[in-house]
Amino acid sequence: MPGTVVSDPNAPAPTITAIRYGPDTFEECADCRIEDLDAMRGASCVLWVDVTGLGDAEVIRRIGDIFGLHRLELEDIVNVHQRPKAEEFEDHVFVVARMVLPDRGVETEQVSMFVGKDFLLTFQERTGDCFTPIRDRLRHGKGRVRQLGPDYLTYALIDAVIDGYYPILEGYGEAIDTLEDEVIERAESEQMHRLHVVKRDLLMLRRAVWPTREMVNGLIRDESPFIGDVARVYLRDCYDHTIQLMDVVETYREISSSLLDAYLSSMSARLNEIMKVLTIIATIFIPLSFIASVYGMNFDPSVSPWNMPELKFYYGYPFALAIMAAVAGGLLYYFRRRGWMGGRRKRP
Amino acid sequence: MPGTVVSDPNAPAPTITAIRYGPDTFEECADCRIEDLDAMRGASCVLWVDVTGLGDAEVIRRIGDIFGLHRLELEDIVNVHQRPKAEEFEDHVFVVARMVLPDRGVETEQVSMFVGKDFLLTFQERTGDCFTPIRDRLRHGKGRVRQLGPDYLTYALIDAVIDGYYPILEGYGEAIDTLEDEVIERAESEQMHRLHVVKRDLLMLRRAVWPTREMVNGLIRDESPFIGDVARVYLRDCYDHTIQLMDVVETYREISSSLLDAYLSSMSARLNEIMKVLTIIATIFIPLSFIASVYGMNFDPSVSPWNMPELKFYYGYPFALAIMAAVAGGLLYYFRRRGWMGGRRKRP
Amino acid sequence: MPGTVVSDPNAPAPTITAIRYGPDTFEECADCRIEDLDAMRGASCVLWVDVTGLGDAEVIRRIGDIFGLHRLELEDIVNVHQRPKAEEFEDHVFVVARMVLPDRGVETEQVSMFVGKDFLLTFQERTGDCFTPIRDRLRHGKGRVRQLGPDYLTYALIDAVIDGYYPILEGYGEAIDTLEDEVIERAESEQMHRLHVVKRDLLMLRRAVWPTREMVNGLIRDESPFIGDVARVYLRDCYDHTIQLMDVVETYREISSSLLDAYLSSMSARLNEIMKVLTIIATIFIPLSFIASVYGMNFDPSVSPWNMPELKFYYGYPFALAIMAAVAGGLLYYFRRRGWMGGRRKRP
Amino acid sequence: MPGTVVSDPNAPAPTITAIRYGPDTFEECADCRIEDLDAMRGASCVLWVDVTGLGDAEVIRRIGDIFGLHRLELEDIVNVHQRPKAEEFEDHVFVVARMVLPDRGVETEQVSMFVGKDFLLTFQERTGDCFTPIRDRLRHGKGRVRQLGPDYLTYALIDAVIDGYYPILEGYGEAIDTLEDEVIERAESEQMHRLHVVKRDLLMLRRAVWPTREMVNGLIRDESPFIGDVARVYLRDCYDHTIQLMDVVETYREISSSLLDAYLSSMSARLNEIMKVLTIIATIFIPLSFIASVYGMNFDPSVSPWNMPELKFYYGYPFALAIMAAVAGGLLYYFRRRGWMGGRRKRP
Amino acid sequence: MPGTVVSDPNAPAPTITAIRYGPDTFEECADCRIEDLDAMRGASCVLWVDVTGLGDAEVIRRIGDIFGLHRLELEDIVNVHQRPKAEEFEDHVFVVARMVLPDRGVETEQVSMFVGKDFLLTFQERTGDCFTPIRDRLRHGKGRVRQLGPDYLTYALIDAVIDGYYPILEGYGEAIDTLEDEVIERAESEQMHRLHVVKRDLLMLRRAVWPTREMVNGLIRDESPFIGDVARVYLRDCYDHTIQLMDVVETYREISSSLLDAYLSSMSARLNEIMKVLTIIATIFIPLSFIASVYGMNFDPSVSPWNMPELKFYYGYPFALAIMAAVAGGLLYYFRRRGWMGGRRKRP
Repeated sequence: MPGTVVSDPNAPAPTITAIRYGPDTFEECADCRIEDLDAMRGASCVLWVDVTGLGDAEVIRRIGDIFGLHRLELEDIVNVHQRPKAEEFEDHVFVVARMVLPDRGVETEQVSMFVGKDFLLTFQERTGDCFTPIRDRLRHGKGRVRQLGPDYLTYALIDAVIDGYYPILEGYGEAIDTLEDEVIERAESEQMHRLHVVKRDLLMLRRAVWPTREMVNGLIRDESPFIGDVARVYLRDCYDHTIQLMDVVETYREISSSLLDAYLSSMSARLNEIMKVLTIIATIFIPLSFIASVYGMNFDPSVSPWNMPELKFYYGYPFALAIMAAVAGGLLYYFRRRGWMGGRRKRP
Repeated sequence: MPGTVVSDPNAPAPTITAIRYGPDTFEECADCRIEDLDAMRGASCVLWVDVTGLGDAEVIRRIGDIFGLHRLELEDIVNVHQRPKAEEFEDHVFVVARMVLPDRGVETEQVSMFVGKDFLLTFQERTGDCFTPIRDRLRHGKGRVRQLGPDYLTYALIDAVIDGYYPILEGYGEAIDTLEDEVIERAESEQMHRLHVVKRDLLMLRRAVWPTREMVNGLIRDESPFIGDVARVYLRDCYDHTIQLMDVVETYREISSSLLDAYLSSMSARLNEIMKVLTIIATIFIPLSFIASVYGMNFDPSVSPWNMPELKFYYGYPFALAIMAAVAGGLLYYFRRRGWMGGRRKRP
Repeated sequence: MPGTVVSDPNAPAPTITAIRYGPDTFEECADCRIEDLDAMRGASCVLWVDVTGLGDAEVIRRIGDIFGLHRLELEDIVNVHQRPKAEEFEDHVFVVARMVLPDRGVETEQVSMFVGKDFLLTFQERTGDCFTPIRDRLRHGKGRVRQLGPDYLTYALIDAVIDGYYPILEGYGEAIDTLEDEVIERAESEQMHRLHVVKRDLLMLRRAVWPTREMVNGLIRDESPFIGDVARVYLRDCYDHTIQLMDVVETYREISSSLLDAYLSSMSARLNEIMKVLTIIATIFIPLSFIASVYGMNFDPSVSPWNMPELKFYYGYPFALAIMAAVAGGLLYYFRRRGWMGGRRKRP
Repeated sequence: MPGTVVSDPNAPAPTITAIRYGPDTFEECADCRIEDLDAMRGASCVLWVDVTGLGDAEVIRRIGDIFGLHRLELEDIVNVHQRPKAEEFEDHVFVVARMVLPDRGVETEQVSMFVGKDFLLTFQERTGDCFTPIRDRLRHGKGRVRQLGPDYLTYALIDAVIDGYYPILEGYGEAIDTLEDEVIERAESEQMHRLHVVKRDLLMLRRAVWPTREMVNGLIRDESPFIGDVARVYLRDCYDHTIQLMDVVETYREISSSLLDAYLSSMSARLNEIMKVLTIIATIFIPLSFIASVYGMNFDPSVSPWNMPELKFYYGYPFALAIMAAVAGGLLYYFRRRGWMGGRRKRP
Repeated sequence: MPGTVVSDPNAPAPTITAIRYGPDTFEECADCRIEDLDAMRGASCVLWVDVTGLGDAEVIRRIGDIFGLHRLELEDIVNVHQRPKAEEFEDHVFVVARMVLPDRGVETEQVSMFVGKDFLLTFQERTGDCFTPIRDRLRHGKGRVRQLGPDYLTYALIDAVIDGYYPILEGYGEAIDTLEDEVIERAESEQMHRLHVVKRDLLMLRRAVWPTREMVNGLIRDESPFIGDVARVYLRDCYDHTIQLMDVVETYREISSSLLDAYLSSMSARLNEIMKVLTIIATIFIPLSFIASVYGMNFDPSVSPWNMPELKFYYGYPFALAIMAAVAGGLLYYFRRRGWMGGRRKRP
C-alpha cells in the first residue's frame, strides 16, 4: 500500500535533537520529546529537529503530522534507498542526500531533509554524521549561520555531505596511483581483483554523486519560496563542487579502464616473453637431442657396412659434435635475426 | 490491414471480472458477461473491468465498442509486444505496462489499461497477476483507493507492476555477487556462460524498464483531464521508482562488464601460470636430456682416441652429472631472477 | 550540376500504373501512358500513380512536370541512396522510404513518394514490392482506405514498408539464438565470421530504420496540410513500430557484442584447457625421460668405480623405476593441488 | 597578437582570378591585379574573386580592406587549420570549408569564402580544386548559376566540395571490403596495420565532415540576408548529403571495429589450432619416447635378475611395441572424444 | 566553514603588480603595496592588478575588500582545483582559467580573473605565466589593447592561456606518431606504458579544455555588462579555438585507442609466430627422436628372433633414416599446406 510507513525492525530507535536559534539566541534540547516540538516552533527563530534512527514508525508518523509531511514523504524516509532528489511541496521542500562517512567505505547513509519557512527537519539512519562542525558554529555563533534562515542551514548540511566525498575519492585516487605503479612495474593477477573492486566502488560513488548534482541544481533553479537568494548563491558553489566530484569520478573510471588495458597488454607481453624462452630452448635442443639419439641407435655394424659406419669413423664423434654446434649456431642466428634474442635489449 | 484485431489462437479465452466501487459501495462480479458491463457504469461509481486472456477477438471488439476504443488500440491489445507507453485519446488515456511475475523470469506480460472518467479497463494476457493486494484493499476499503477515482486505481496498478521488478532485479544482483566471488576465487568457463545469460536478461529488463519511465513521465506531464492532481503526486513517486530501477539495471550491467574483464584477465593470468610451469620444467630438463643423450651415443672408442674418450675417464660420470647440475642450477637462477619462481610469492 | 536527372543505364525501364479511387469508384490502368495521367486527376477522386523502374530520365522528368516536382526532387528519385526523410514543399510532401523484401536480405530499395492534395505519386526501383495487400484493399473496397485521402494511402504504404522489416529482423534474431547455442556448446572459428556478418547486416538495417523513425515523426509533427488528422493518428501507430524496430535492432546488436565476448572467453578457456593437457603430460614425462636417458649413458664402468656403478647394483633397475614413479606421483599431486586435474570437475 | 596576418613562408604566392557575371554577361580576368578588383564590383553583376595561394600577407590584407573583412577573418584565412564553420558578419557571411582532392588522400585543404551582396571572395591554399565544372557552367551559361546571385554560387562551390568526399569514402569502403574478405579468409598481421590506417583516416574524414554539417545547417538556419530562399532550398539538399556522408563514415567506423574483433578472434582461433597440433603430437610421442628410453637403459642384467629381465624375454620387443601402440591409441581416443581431432570437421 | 580563506602554507607569498593604462597613458607598479591600489583606480583608465602567489590569506582578503569580491570567490581563489568557469556577480564577472606552461607538462595552474567596469584583477599560483607578450603590447601600445577596456584585456589573457595548450598538444601528437611508427614496426611492452601515460595525460588536458569551452561560451552568451560587443567578437574566435582543441584532444584519444588495438593484435600475431616456430620444430623432431629411441632400445636379439631383428638387417640403418626422412617430409608438407610455412611470404 503506497504511503505506508514500515520501519526496519533492525534499525536503531529514533533519538530527537532539537536546536532553536536566532541571531542572538541558541537553545539545544538533546533527547527531546515529540510533545515539546510543537511548542519550540518560535516566531522569529529557526528550529532544527534532527531525528537519528528510523526504528519506530509511530515516532516518524507523529513528527510528520506536526510538520505537515505527505505520507509518501514518510515512506521515503524509512525506505533508505532513495536517490538524492529535491521535491517541492506546498509548505516545505523535501531534500534527500546521501552521506558517506570516512570509516564506512562507499556505503552511503540517507539523510532526508524538510526545509520549511522556519524549520529544518532532518532524518538520519544511524548515529554519527559529518554535521558536528555546523552544530559548533551554531552553538558559538560563528559565521553567518545564526544570521540566516533554515535554507542557509540546509545549504551548510548539503555542503558538509558533499565535502565528505572528497577524502573518500582521494583514497581511491591513491589506490589507482598505487595500482598504476604496480601494474607498470609488474602485472600480477591480484591487482586485477583490486582494480575490479575499485571500479565497482567508483560506480557506487557515481550513483550517489550524479543525482546529488541534479538535486542541488533543482534547489537553485526551482525558485522555491523556501530557498532564499543568499542561500542560492552558496548552493551555486555547492553545485560547482558536485560537478568537480563527478569530473573526478569519471576521470578515475577512465584511468581504471586504461589501467585494465595496460594490465592485459602487460600480461600478453609476459606470455610472449615466456613463450620465447621456451621456444628458444626447445627448438635448439630438440634437434640436437635427435642427432644424439640417432647415434645412440643400436644397429649392428658387424652385419652390414650400411649399418652406422660413422660410429667407427676416426673423427666420428667430433664430427657429430660439430654438426650439433652448427645446428645450434644456425638456430641462434635465426632467433637473433628475428629479434627474439639480445637485439631486443638494444632498442629503447 | 491496420486496425485489424486477430487473436492468437493459442491464447487463453477471456474472462471478465468487473468491480464497481465508491467510497461506501463495493460490488464484484467474477466471470461477468459483456452485456452486463454497460449497465454497471454508474453515475458516481468507478467501474474496473479486468479482462484476462486475449483468445477471442470478438469479445475484445465488443468491449472496445462499449468503452469507445479506437481500432488501433484494439490491435495493440492483442499484439502483445507493445513497449510501455501512455497515449491520450479523446475520452480516455491508453496505458501499456509490462508486468513481470516472480516465477516467469524476465518474460514480461503486457497489461493494457484504458482510464476514462469513471472507468478503468485492463487487459491481461494470462491468469495470474500482482494486483491481488489492490483487490483486497478495494474489497475491505483499506487505504484511499475507494475514496479516489480510476486514476488513483491506475496508479496503484502501475505501482504494483513496477514494484514487481524489484525482487527480479534483486535476484540478478545476487547472481552477480555470486559470480563475482567465484570469478575472483577461480575463473571457470561456465561462469562466462552464466554471465552472458545475466547480461542478456538485464538487457531484456532494461528494454521493459526504460519505456516504463517514459510512460509514467507522460502521465505526469501530459495534463490529461483523466489523471487528477492527487494521482499525479503519487505517480511522481512511481517515477522515482522507475528511475531507481533503471539506475540499478545500468549499474548491474556495468558491473557485469567489469566482471567480464576480471574473468578474461584471470584466464590470461592462469595461462601465464600454466606456461610458466611448462617452460620451467621443459627448459631445465631438455638440455639435461640432451647431455645424457650425447653420452648415450654409440661411437666406438676403440677405433679412435677422438671417439668419446670421456666415457672412459675415471671421473667421467660424476663430471657429466656435475655439468647437468650446473646447467639446471644456472637455469633455476635465471628463472628466479626473472621473478618466475619463488619471488612471486613474497610480493603481496 | 545540381538538379540534373541522370538515369542509371542498367536500371529497368519505367512502367506506370495509375489507380483512381473514391469511396464508390475504382479505376485501374496498368501500363499507363504519361499523356493520360493529367486527365485522370479528378475532382473528388484520389489518383495513385506508381512508377516502377527508373531507367528513363525523360519519363521521370515529364511526370515531375505534371505533378510540379522540384528538380532536386527529381535528382533524389534517381539517386537511389537517399536516407528516409520527409520534406515539405509548397504543393506536396516528399517522402523517401527504404523497403526491404524477404528475398533480398538487408538490401533496401528506395521508394519515393509525393503526397499532394488529391494524388500520391510513388517511384520504385524494381518490380516487386510489399504493396499488394493494399492494392487488393483498394480494389475490393475493404477497410477505410477508399473512404480517406492520399494521406491515408501514404500511411498504408509506409506501414507496409515498416512491417516488412519485422520478418527480416526475426531472421536475424533466430540466427543470433542459433549462434548463442552453438557458442555456448562449442566455440568455432566460423561462428565468428557468421557473427561478423550478422553485426554488419544489423548495422545496415539500423541505417535504414533510424531515419525512418525521423521521417515518420516529421510527418506527424510538421502540421503539413497534406497529412490529415486521421492519418496522423495512424502514423502515430507507425511511429511506435519504428521505435520498436530500433529497440529490437539495438538489442540484437548488444546481444551480438556480448556473444563476441562469450566467444572470446570460450576460446581462451579452451586454450587454457589445451595448454593444461600439454603441460601435465610434458612436465611429467620430460623428467622421467631424463632419468631414463641418464641410465642410458655409455660410461664405461670397467675403467672406474665412479662410472655408473648403479648399473651393476642388484636392485638398480627397480630403484630407477621407483624414482621415476616417485617423480611422476609428486608432479601429479602438485597438479591436483593446483586444481589442474580432477578437482575441476567437482566444482559446479 | 590576435588579428595578425602572418603567412607561412613556404606557402605559394597568391594568384587572383576574378570572374564577373550576370544573366547575360561574363567576364574572366586570370592573374588579376588587386587595383582592378574594386573597379570590377558592378551594379547588377556578381563578382567572384578567387585567390589561390596564401604566401603573401600583404595581398590578403589589401583584398580584405577592399571587401571589408574583419582582422580576425584575415587571421583565419592564413591559419589553415580552421574547422568548417559559417559566421555572420555585418556585410557578409564568412564560410570555411575543407576540400579533399582525389590525389591527396585524406589531407584537406581550407577554402575560405566570403559571401556579400554582390560578391563572393574565395581563398584556397594551393592550385588545383574541384570547381572547374562550375567555372565551365559560368562560362557557357549552363544551368541556373548565371541567373542567380553569389549565394547560389556559394552553394555550388560547397556542393562541389561535399561531392568530393564521396569518391574518397568509396575508396575506403572498398579497402574495408577487401580487408573483410582477407580477414575472413586468413588473418595476417599486416591487415591489422592497414585497418589501423583506415581507422585513423576515417577519423580524419569525420573531423572534416561533422563540422561541415553544422556549417551548412548554420547557413540554412541563420536567416542571413546574404543567403536567399532559392539557395536555401539547394543548401537543404547539401545538408542531406553531409548527413549521408556522416552516416557512411560512422558505418565504416563501426564495420572497422567489428573487423578488428573478427581479426582478433581469428588470431585466437589460429593459436588454438596451432597449440592443438603441438599438444597432440607432443603428448602422444613424449610418453612413447619415455618408454623407449626406459628400454634403452644400460642396467646390467648379468648382475641381478631384477635388472631389466624384460630385455631378454622372448616376446620382449613386440610387447614393448604393443604397449606403445596402446598408449598412442588411448591418447588418440581421448583427443578425438574431446573433439580435438577429426570430429571438428564434421560439424559445420 | 564556507567562505573561509585558508592559504596553503607552502604556497609562495603574493607579489602584486599593478598596471594602469589608457589609450595614451601607461603606468606600471611592480611589487605594489595594497594601500596604493585603491588610489590607482582612475576615472578613465583601466587598472590591471596581477597577484602572483597565494600564500597569504590576509593579503587576498584585503584585495577582495577593495574590489568587492564575495567570500566564496576568495575561497575559490585559494582552492586552486577549480574547473574553468565564468560566473556573473553584481559588479564584476568572475572567470577561472587553467594555464599550462611548456615546462610543466599537463600540470595546470589556476588563473582567477575578476573583470569589473574599469579593472581586471588576476590571481596566479606561481611566478611564470604566458602573459609577457600582452604586457609588452600594453607597454608599447601595440595593437588595440590600450584602446579598449578590461574586457578586451581579459580576452587577450584567455586567448594566451588557450594558445598555450597548442604546443603541449602538438607534443602529444608527435608522441603518438612516434608510438604509431614503433608499434607498427615492432610492438614492445614499454610502448604500452608510454601509451598509457599519453592517454592519462590527454584525459587531464581534456578535463581542463572541456570546461574552458563552456567558460568562453558563458562569457559570450551571458550578455554581461562587463563584456562589450567588441570583446565578444574576439571571444567568438577564442571559442573556435577551444572547439578546435577539444577536437584535437578527442582525435588523439581515439587514435590512442586504435593504437592499443594495433598493439594487442601485433602482440597476438607475434605469439602466433613464436608458437608456430616451436610447433613446427617440435612436431617434426619429437616423432623422429621417438624412432631413434626405439632403435636405441637394448632388447637382446640373441634370446629371440622377435627381439629387434631389424638391428641386424643389411639395410636396417638406411631404412630407419628413410623412415625418419619420410615422417619429416610428410609433416613439412602438412605445415606448408596449412600455410604455416613459406606460403605465408607469397601473400602480400
